[in-house]
Amino acid sequence: MSTFRRRVIPDATIARLPIYQRCLMELEEDGRKKASSEQLAELAGVNGAKVRKDLSYFGTYGTRGVGYDVPHLLHEIRRELGMTHDWPCVIIGAGNLGSALAKFGGFVDRGFSVVAIMDVDQSKVGHQVGSLTVRHEDELPEVVKEFDISIGIITTTAAAAQDVADQLVEAGVRSILNFAPATLDVPYGVLVRDVDVAIELQILAFHEERRALSEAEIV
Amino acid sequence: MSTFRRRVIPDATIARLPIYQRCLMELEEDGRKKASSEQLAELAGVNGAKVRKDLSYFGTYGTRGVGYDVPHLLHEIRRELGMTHDWPCVIIGAGNLGSALAKFGGFVDRGFSVVAIMDVDQSKVGHQVGSLTVRHEDELPEVVKEFDISIGIITTTAAAAQDVADQLVEAGVRSILNFAPATLDVPYGVLVRDVDVAIELQILAFHEERRALSEAEIV
Repeated sequence: MSTFRRRVIPDATIARLPIYQRCLMELEEDGRKKASSEQLAELAGVNGAKVRKDLSYFGTYGTRGVGYDVPHLLHEIRRELGMTHDWPCVIIGAGNLGSALAKFGGFVDRGFSVVAIMDVDQSKVGHQVGSLTVRHEDELPEVVKEFDISIGIITTTAAAAQDVADQLVEAGVRSILNFAPATLDVPYGVLVRDVDVAIELQILAFHEERRALSEAEIV
Repeated sequence: MSTFRRRVIPDATIARLPIYQRCLMELEEDGRKKASSEQLAELAGVNGAKVRKDLSYFGTYGTRGVGYDVPHLLHEIRRELGMTHDWPCVIIGAGNLGSALAKFGGFVDRGFSVVAIMDVDQSKVGHQVGSLTVRHEDELPEVVKEFDISIGIITTTAAAAQDVADQLVEAGVRSILNFAPATLDVPYGVLVRDVDVAIELQILAFHEERRALSEAEIV
């Protein structure tokens, strides 16, 4: 039991930590041992003052004229992000997107492993997706216990997403990554992050549209 | 040629427009003709004041006691988002993720259509992905012209992403949706939106870790 009080860290800072981590990993791969806040800032696409402020929340300061120690800072951020141990994830929805994510493998090196993929559709149950066999969604409580699941990934249709979220919460999962284009209603203490590809596309389209209109005005 | 001056709209507001759109579509499907800012706020997971402020940028005001007109507001937002015409997209990288996105079809109803999928890997070129045949990345300039591509979607590895971004920009594409875990360097005027699933997972993990530590302290 520790009496150490953790400071409240702004969400925007938390959202940038994985980006710093990614940049530091790139630097490490290039064999770099030191990096200035300005170098990190350029890689991360923010300004140097923001980098220094963000990292100061974790009691991590660079040395003037020398910069940050890359391996040390990487370790600190990994520890803060809980990357020093594994996070077993379950995917609910074995359609195109769910299957692609299960096979993707792109997050294993960051501590995330998809240990199960499930669906309500009997025609999908039993099928092989990469190294996993699709299980029926009814088995969710057992799967959560068996693998000590901490994150549920929803890749169902919008219509099915709320039911799946309820089942995940009921099974004890408190972190949900939602790919379904639906706003989920979850109890206090459960965290949902939405990944809506269409929303990202629409933000791009919005700017394209404005750009086109502005150019039309200039002509 | 219009002399109408568009107001500068905060990025945060732009990011919420597609969410309002999604909520309004849900209301419309339920046959609702009117919605108060509070109802919209609840669906969108923000507060009512924010909804009113956001929508006021577009000169759209609700009627006190009656609320917003759902079909009218939906039309206004669609127009603002450029959803009243089609946005042809090209996917570069015909791996698991790129293929899944191409087949997904979840954005067609919002005006986005994947009209081409490309790869450098000769073993993938010529293969069928849904209704599309994978084309070689070298043909990118022709594809961009042929389909009047406005958005490029990068689903390559991190190592290949910058090259692909350069090729897209060279071909005249100014909007990029990047799924590769790499920070892209693009000229001024080109807009990149990053979708990094691992980053979303890490944000969830960060909060899980803090929660676990806090609970350990209480015990």
